[in-house]
Amino acid sequence: MTDNTTIFERRESEARSYCRGMPATFASASGSHLTDAEGNSWIDFLAGCSSLNYGHNDPDMKSALIDHIAGDGIAHGLDLHTNTKAGFLEAFERHILEPRDMDHRVMFTGPTGANAVEAAMKIARKVTGRDNIIAFTNGFHGVTLGALAATGNAYHRGGAGTELKGVTRMPFDGFFPGDTDTADFVEAMLNDSSGGVDAPAAILLETVQGEGGLNAASPDWLRRIAKLAKDHGALLIIDDIQAGCGRCGGFFSFENMGVTPDIVTMAKSVSGFGLPMAMVLVRPEYDIFGPAEHNGTFRGNTHAFVTARVAIEKFWADDSFARALAEKETLVHDALADIAALIPDARLKGRGMMQGVDVGSGDLAGDICARAYDKGLVIETSGSEDEVIKVLAPLTTPAETFRKGFDILREATQEALAAPNKIAAE
Amino acid sequence: MTDNTTIFERRESEARSYCRGMPATFASASGSHLTDAEGNSWIDFLAGCSSLNYGHNDPDMKSALIDHIAGDGIAHGLDLHTNTKAGFLEAFERHILEPRDMDHRVMFTGPTGANAVEAAMKIARKVTGRDNIIAFTNGFHGVTLGALAATGNAYHRGGAGTELKGVTRMPFDGFFPGDTDTADFVEAMLNDSSGGVDAPAAILLETVQGEGGLNAASPDWLRRIAKLAKDHGALLIIDDIQAGCGRCGGFFSFENMGVTPDIVTMAKSVSGFGLPMAMVLVRPEYDIFGPAEHNGTFRGNTHAFVTARVAIEKFWADDSFARALAEKETLVHDALADIAALIPDARLKGRGMMQGVDVGSGDLAGDICARAYDKGLVIETSGSEDEVIKVLAPLTTPAETFRKGFDILREATQEALAAPNKIAAE
Amino acid sequence: MTDNTTIFERRESEARSYCRGMPATFASASGSHLTDAEGNSWIDFLAGCSSLNYGHNDPDMKSALIDHIAGDGIAHGLDLHTNTKAGFLEAFERHILEPRDMDHRVMFTGPTGANAVEAAMKIARKVTGRDNIIAFTNGFHGVTLGALAATGNAYHRGGAGTELKGVTRMPFDGFFPGDTDTADFVEAMLNDSSGGVDAPAAILLETVQGEGGLNAASPDWLRRIAKLAKDHGALLIIDDIQAGCGRCGGFFSFENMGVTPDIVTMAKSVSGFGLPMAMVLVRPEYDIFGPAEHNGTFRGNTHAFVTARVAIEKFWADDSFARALAEKETLVHDALADIAALIPDARLKGRGMMQGVDVGSGDLAGDICARAYDKGLVIETSGSEDEVIKVLAPLTTPAETFRKGFDILREATQEALAAPNKIAAE
Amino acid sequence: MTDNTTIFERRESEARSYCRGMPATFASASGSHLTDAEGNSWIDFLAGCSSLNYGHNDPDMKSALIDHIAGDGIAHGLDLHTNTKAGFLEAFERHILEPRDMDHRVMFTGPTGANAVEAAMKIARKVTGRDNIIAFTNGFHGVTLGALAATGNAYHRGGAGTELKGVTRMPFDGFFPGDTDTADFVEAMLNDSSGGVDAPAAILLETVQGEGGLNAASPDWLRRIAKLAKDHGALLIIDDIQAGCGRCGGFFSFENMGVTPDIVTMAKSVSGFGLPMAMVLVRPEYDIFGPAEHNGTFRGNTHAFVTARVAIEKFWADDSFARALAEKETLVHDALADIAALIPDARLKGRGMMQGVDVGSGDLAGDICARAYDKGLVIETSGSEDEVIKVLAPLTTPAETFRKGFDILREATQEALAAPNKIAAE
Repeated sequence: MTDNTTIFERRESEARSYCRGMPATFASASGSHLTDAEGNSWIDFLAGCSSLNYGHNDPDMKSALIDHIAGDGIAHGLDLHTNTKAGFLEAFERHILEPRDMDHRVMFTGPTGANAVEAAMKIARKVTGRDNIIAFTNGFHGVTLGALAATGNAYHRGGAGTELKGVTRMPFDGFFPGDTDTADFVEAMLNDSSGGVDAPAAILLETVQGEGGLNAASPDWLRRIAKLAKDHGALLIIDDIQAGCGRCGGFFSFENMGVTPDIVTMAKSVSGFGLPMAMVLVRPEYDIFGPAEHNGTFRGNTHAFVTARVAIEKFWADDSFARALAEKETLVHDALADIAALIPDARLKGRGMMQGVDVGSGDLAGDICARAYDKGLVIETSGSEDEVIKVLAPLTTPAETFRKGFDILREATQEALAAPNKIAAE
Repeated sequence: MTDNTTIFERRESEARSYCRGMPATFASASGSHLTDAEGNSWIDFLAGCSSLNYGHNDPDMKSALIDHIAGDGIAHGLDLHTNTKAGFLEAFERHILEPRDMDHRVMFTGPTGANAVEAAMKIARKVTGRDNIIAFTNGFHGVTLGALAATGNAYHRGGAGTELKGVTRMPFDGFFPGDTDTADFVEAMLNDSSGGVDAPAAILLETVQGEGGLNAASPDWLRRIAKLAKDHGALLIIDDIQAGCGRCGGFFSFENMGVTPDIVTMAKSVSGFGLPMAMVLVRPEYDIFGPAEHNGTFRGNTHAFVTARVAIEKFWADDSFARALAEKETLVHDALADIAALIPDARLKGRGMMQGVDVGSGDLAGDICARAYDKGLVIETSGSEDEVIKVLAPLTTPAETFRKGFDILREATQEALAAPNKIAAE
Repeated sequence: MTDNTTIFERRESEARSYCRGMPATFASASGSHLTDAEGNSWIDFLAGCSSLNYGHNDPDMKSALIDHIAGDGIAHGLDLHTNTKAGFLEAFERHILEPRDMDHRVMFTGPTGANAVEAAMKIARKVTGRDNIIAFTNGFHGVTLGALAATGNAYHRGGAGTELKGVTRMPFDGFFPGDTDTADFVEAMLNDSSGGVDAPAAILLETVQGEGGLNAASPDWLRRIAKLAKDHGALLIIDDIQAGCGRCGGFFSFENMGVTPDIVTMAKSVSGFGLPMAMVLVRPEYDIFGPAEHNGTFRGNTHAFVTARVAIEKFWADDSFARALAEKETLVHDALADIAALIPDARLKGRGMMQGVDVGSGDLAGDICARAYDKGLVIETSGSEDEVIKVLAPLTTPAETFRKGFDILREATQEALAAPNKIAAE
Repeated sequence: MTDNTTIFERRESEARSYCRGMPATFASASGSHLTDAEGNSWIDFLAGCSSLNYGHNDPDMKSALIDHIAGDGIAHGLDLHTNTKAGFLEAFERHILEPRDMDHRVMFTGPTGANAVEAAMKIARKVTGRDNIIAFTNGFHGVTLGALAATGNAYHRGGAGTELKGVTRMPFDGFFPGDTDTADFVEAMLNDSSGGVDAPAAILLETVQGEGGLNAASPDWLRRIAKLAKDHGALLIIDDIQAGCGRCGGFFSFENMGVTPDIVTMAKSVSGFGLPMAMVLVRPEYDIFGPAEHNGTFRGNTHAFVTARVAIEKFWADDSFARALAEKETLVHDALADIAALIPDARLKGRGMMQGVDVGSGDLAGDICARAYDKGLVIETSGSEDEVIKVLAPLTTPAETFRKGFDILREATQEALAAPNKIAAE
C-alpha cells in the first residue's frame, strides 16, 4: 500500500455513502444477519434497500448458483437464448403473470433499476409521441438523466449539472395535510386546456415511496390516477423496484388495488439473491421497441436468472409465503407503534413490510439509527429530511430476530430521546 | 406452458436482438467456446461484446467465486465496505493505477456501462458548470437518456422518443476521407467565439469505436483533442468500456498514446467473468460528488469484485499477458488481411484485439456472419451500415482456436461472395 | 391581380385570425369607433387587445406624431440616444416611477410583449444562475420559444413543434373551486426539498389573466406569492402587458396590492397610440445585461416614444384620469351584472376596466360575440374554452358609448339565448 | 430630474449599446444623414443596421404616412383586414412575388426579426415533426430563446442564462481556409446514419452573414445546401432580414443563386421607413399554422404597411433601382479596396451593398470606427472579434455622399494605423 489510510479513503470516490455511517468491513452474511471481518454481527433491517427480500445467501439459491457456475453455465450471454433465461421466464409466467391475468411481455434491461425506468419512459414516449411524463413529489426513480428528471430529491437532481426536462411534477397522495385529495389537483391540471401541462406520455409512480418517506398511495387515489392516465391517453407506469417482490405483501405492490399498470419496472429483489437484475413488464401492445433499440451489455444477467427462478418457485408457487407476510406485517406495525408512542408527534408510515416511523426530524432519526448500528442493528432513514426510520428487513426474517431488532431500535430511540438536545445546545 | 410457441416468443420483449440471428439456446461455455442445450458448439469471436476478454468461466475466477458463495460471502453490499471490495481496490491500485502513475479515484456506479457514462457526464457538468459535451460521429456510449445524447446511432437515438440535448457532435478521426485532419475542424469550431459551440464541459470519446465500425483514433489526433479539452477548460473523458481491459493491448486503450484522461469509464470486461460491473476513474480534484449524489442499488457488485480481483492479479501483475496479446494482434491482423484480400475494396479496421474488415455493405457482412454461425462461429458486425465484420474474440483464445475460427470465417466469406447476388436479383 | 379571391385569402397566411370572425376591411378609427372601407362603423370593446387604452388616434398624440414626422424626426434610431427617447424617459420617470417610489431601470426590448417577456426570463435566469421559472395555469406570455414555455394554452404550445422546457406550472389564484388557497400549494411544493420543483429563478404572473379568462389574483394571494419568491431567492416578474397602462385602474395593475415586482414587462398600450413598443422595468441591482447582450433592431421605436410621452403627460400627470376610471369600472361592472343575470350560472370575472362574463360555454360566448359584431360591436372572448366574454374597451370610452355598446351586447345575448340550441340540434 | 446625470444614465438599462460609442443625442435625419440636437451632422453608413435601406424619412413614404395619420387611418389593427394591409399585399404580390415566380404566403409575425425567425423555426418543426434545426457558424438570427439557439455568438448565447437546444451547428461556406468545401462536411454528417446529427427540420442560413463578419455564401455552396435540405426532408429557411430588401442587389439576397427557399424571414427594411415590421414568406404547402397559433399583438403594423407599400412601388416596380445598385456596388467595392490596400493582410468581405474590410483585429476596427464617428461618419464593425468594418449605407446614398463618407473612412484608417500601437505599448 502506498500510505496508511485505508484503501477506501485512498481510492474510493467521495460518492461512497452507506459506509460512512456504518464503517465496518463486512465479510459474510446469512439470512437476516451481516458479519464483519472481525466477527461482529448485525441484524439487517435494510436488506440492501429491499434488494434482499429473501435474506442473504438463501441456501436454495446459493446451491443452484454454485451448481450453475461449477457446471460452466453461461455467466454472460448478452440477450441470447439460454436455458437459464427460459427457466426464469417459465417460472415467472406460471407463478406470477398467469395467476394475475397479466399478459405483459418481459424486457430485460441493463441490470439497474434506473435502466428499467429509463426504458419505461422511452417506451411511453415512443408509444404516445409525447414528451411529458408526470411524476410525483418525493418520488425516487434513479439518477441517470432520464430517470433523474422524474426523481424529486433536490440533492440528487443537483448532481445532474444540467437542466432536467420532460417531467411535470404533481403532488402525491397525502402530500397536503387534511382532506385535500391530490387526485383532484392532478385532474384539474390535466383537464384545463390552458393549464399548461402538456398531454402526458405517462404517469409514473411508486405505490409506496421508498426513498421519499414511505408515503403510501391509497387504492382509491391510485384508481383515480389510473383512470386519469387512461382518459388522457397516457400509460400508467408503476415503479415497483423497491415496493415489489413481496415487500408490500403480494408479489406486486399494486395487487388488490384495482389497477393493472401498462408498464411495471422491477429490479432490487427480482434476482432473489441481491444480484444485479432489472426488467420492464409491458403490455404486448406497447412492446414496440425494435431489436436492441434499447440495449445494454449486461441485460439478461444469467447468474441472476438462476437465483430468480429459484426465488419464484420457492416463494411464489403457492400462497404460504404471502400469508406469512401478512402476519409479519402486523408484527412490524405493532413494534413500530410501540416505538412511535415514545416520540411526541411521531407518525407511522408505509404499509406491508415497508413501514417506518416519522420521528419529526432528520437529526433525531439519524441519531437513533447511529445508536442502533452501534448496538448491532443496520437500519436507515428515508424522506425529504431523512425524518423517517424505515424498516426494510428481509421478508424471511424470523419473528425472534424481528423482536431482537425492534428491542435494539427501541433502546436506541429511548437513548436518543434522553440525550442532551444537540441542536438546542448549539 | 400456455401455448406451443417458445417462452421467448411468448414472453420476451421484441427488444431482444442477438438471439434472432443466433437462435440456439445456449447452456454452457468455457474459454472461447459456447455450447447449446443440444451439445452443439461454437467458437466465440464475440466474447459478450468484449465483456469476456478472459474467456468464459476462467477456472481461477470460477473457483474464487464458488468459494465466496459457498462461504456465505456478501452477495449484495450496497456501497458498504467489504473485504472483497478492498481486495479488488488493492489489486487495481497496485497492478493498474500505480504502474501507470494514475492517482485517479474509483467510483463504483450502477453496473452498466451506460451508468458509468452518465456519472462521467454528470461529473464533468458539475465540475465545469457547463452543459455542453462534445461527442463524436459513430460514438456509442449507451442508451439511457444522458448517454444516448452522446451516442451517434440514429436507430438508438430514435428510441428516446424525446429530444436529446446537451451534446455537440464533432467528426471523429478519419471521418473524412483523404488528408483532412478532423482535429482542425474541432479546433476551428471551438476557437471561434461566434462558432456557436458552447464552451464544453467535456470531450467524450472512445479511442477505438467498437460499435461505430472499429474506427481507431491516431495518437496524434488524440493528443490534439486532449490539448483542446485542456485549453478550453473541458474534461477529457475516455470511454474505455469496450476498448479497455486489454482489448487494445494494454489494460487501457489509451496507454502509449501520450494522454491521461481526466475521467475513464469502464465496464464490460472489468469483472473478468462477464458479471455486471462498471466504474468511473476520476482525477481526485474532480471527484466532487457528495455521498450518494450519484447512487444506485447495485453499485459495487460484490461477486464481480471477487472475479475482478482474480482477473487483475492473474493477467496484469506482470507483462506476460500483454506481450502475448501483441503476438495475437499480428495473428488476427494477418488472418483478416487474407480475408479482406478476397473482397474488392475491403478495408482493415481497428487495432489490437479489436480488428475487423469493412466489406463495403451491411448485407454482405450480415450474410458472412450468418454463414459463419451455421458453421460454428459466433461473430458480429459493427458500423453505421453494419458493414464491418468485427473480431472480438476472448484475449485468451489459443492460436489453434483462432485458426479454426478464421478458417470458418474465410469459408463463409467465400461462400457469400460466390452466392447469387441477392440485391442484384431483387 | 392573379385571380378573384381577395388578396387576403390569396396571399395572407392561414395564421390570420381576428379577420375570420370580423371580416370587414377596416379603414379608419377614432376614439372608441372603428370604420370600414364602406363606411360601416363599430364600437370597439376590444381596443387592440388592450393596446389602445387611450382610444384610436388620440388627437394630441396624433398631432405630436405628425409634427415629428413632418420635421424629419428620427424614425429608426437603434438604441442611440434621441431627444424623443429622452422625452419619454423623463416623463416616465417623473409621472410614473418617482411617484410610486420605483427605482427601476427601463430596458427597451424588441417592440413586442413576447420580447419583453423573453428578456425578463433571461435576466432572472442570468441573475440567479437557475433555469426554472414558475408560471401559472391559464397564463399567457407570448409565443416565442422562451415565453411560450410559460404560456399555458395547449393550442399555442402545440405550435412550438418541439419540447418547451424550463417552466414549472402552478395553479393560479382561484384555480380550485372552494376555499383552497393555491398559494398553500405553491408553498408546499417549494418548501419540500424532495418536491421535485427546482429552485426557481423567477415567479412570473399576470395579476389579471387577460387571455386566460380574466382570473384576478387577490392582494393577499399576490403578497404570499411575492414572499415565496423572496424566500426562495427568486425574482418576481409581473407581466403587465395586458393589465397595465391603466387597464386595472392605476398605471400598473399591481398598485395598491402591496408588492413591488423585481421586473415588470410592458407592451400593448405603452406607446399610447397602438404603435409597437415594449419595455422591461428592472430593479437596478438586477440590471445585469451587458451592452446589447439582449438586442434587437427595433428596440426603441422612436415614433412610439413620441406618442408614449404624450400619453404619460396627458393621462398620468395628475390623478384625474385614474379617478374617472374608478367610475367607469362601476359602470362596466353593473352593465355586465345585468347581462350575467340573463344567463344561468354566469359569473362575473376580472376587475377594473378588464371585466367580463363567464357564460359557461365557448359556443355561447362565440355566438354572442358574433351577433354583437353584426350589430356594430367589436368584442372578443377569453379563457380556456373561450367561455368568457371580455370587455376591453378604450379607457377613454364615454359613458354614452359604453351604454350603446352594452345595449348591443345585451341584445346579442338575449338573441343567442333564444336561438335554437345548435349543439343539442346536432 | 432627480440628479444631474443624464436621463439615459439614470434610467436606461445597461443593455443600451450603440449610444456608448456614439453618444450624441440625435434629433433628426434625412436621406443618408443624421443630425443631433446641437446641429452636428453625420453621414450614415449604418442605416439602422440595414433597416433604412431607402434612407431616412423618404419623402414619398413620409407624405403617405402623414396623410394616413391625419386621416385617422388605423394605427393598430391586430390582424384584422385593413385597406393598408391589402395595399401592401397587392404591391408585394405584383412587384415582388409574381415576377420571381414565388407562390409563397405572407405571414405577419410580431414586428421583430427574431419573431419572424421564431415563427419560421416553429413552422419547420411542426411541418416535419422534427426538433433539430441546422444553423451555421457565425449566424445571427436574434436573441429570443428559439432564435438564440440558432445564433452563434457566445456573448449573446450567454445572455440566455439557460441551455439552448434544438440546433446543430455546421460550418458556413468558407469557414475553413483553403479548398475545403464545408458543404462536404454537412453532407457527410447528414449522410452517416450514426453521425449523431438528428434528421433536420430545417436548414437555416443567411446568404451573407451580416453580424457574423460579412461572410458570403457562394451560389454553388448554397445550391448544395438546398439540395441537402431537400434530400433529407428538411425545409430551407433563408433569413433575409439583413441581406434582403435590395441590400445584395436584388430584392431578395438569394436571387440569381439558383435556389428558392421554403421559408424566407424578413424584417429591418421591409417597412421602408424603419418602422417595426417583420414577416415570414412560406410556401403554401407549409403554411400550416392554424388561426393565431403563432400570434402577437403588433403583428401587422399598419403604419408600416403604408410605408412598405410605397417602398415597393417606388423602388421595385421596375428594374431601375436594381440597376443603380449594381453601379454603387462597384463604387463601394473600389473604395473599400483602396482602404484595404492601406492595411497589411486586410481582406474584402461581403457582396452587393453589404461589403466591408476585415482589418485583422477588433481593436483596429474599433479605433477606425471611433475616429470616423468623430469626423462625421456613423459606421460599425461586425464579425466574431469585431474585426470587420462594415458599410451598410442607405442604398439610396448619392455617389457624392459615398465619396465623402469613404474619404472620412480612409482618413480614419490612416490615422489609426499611424497612431502608436496601443496594444504593443501596454
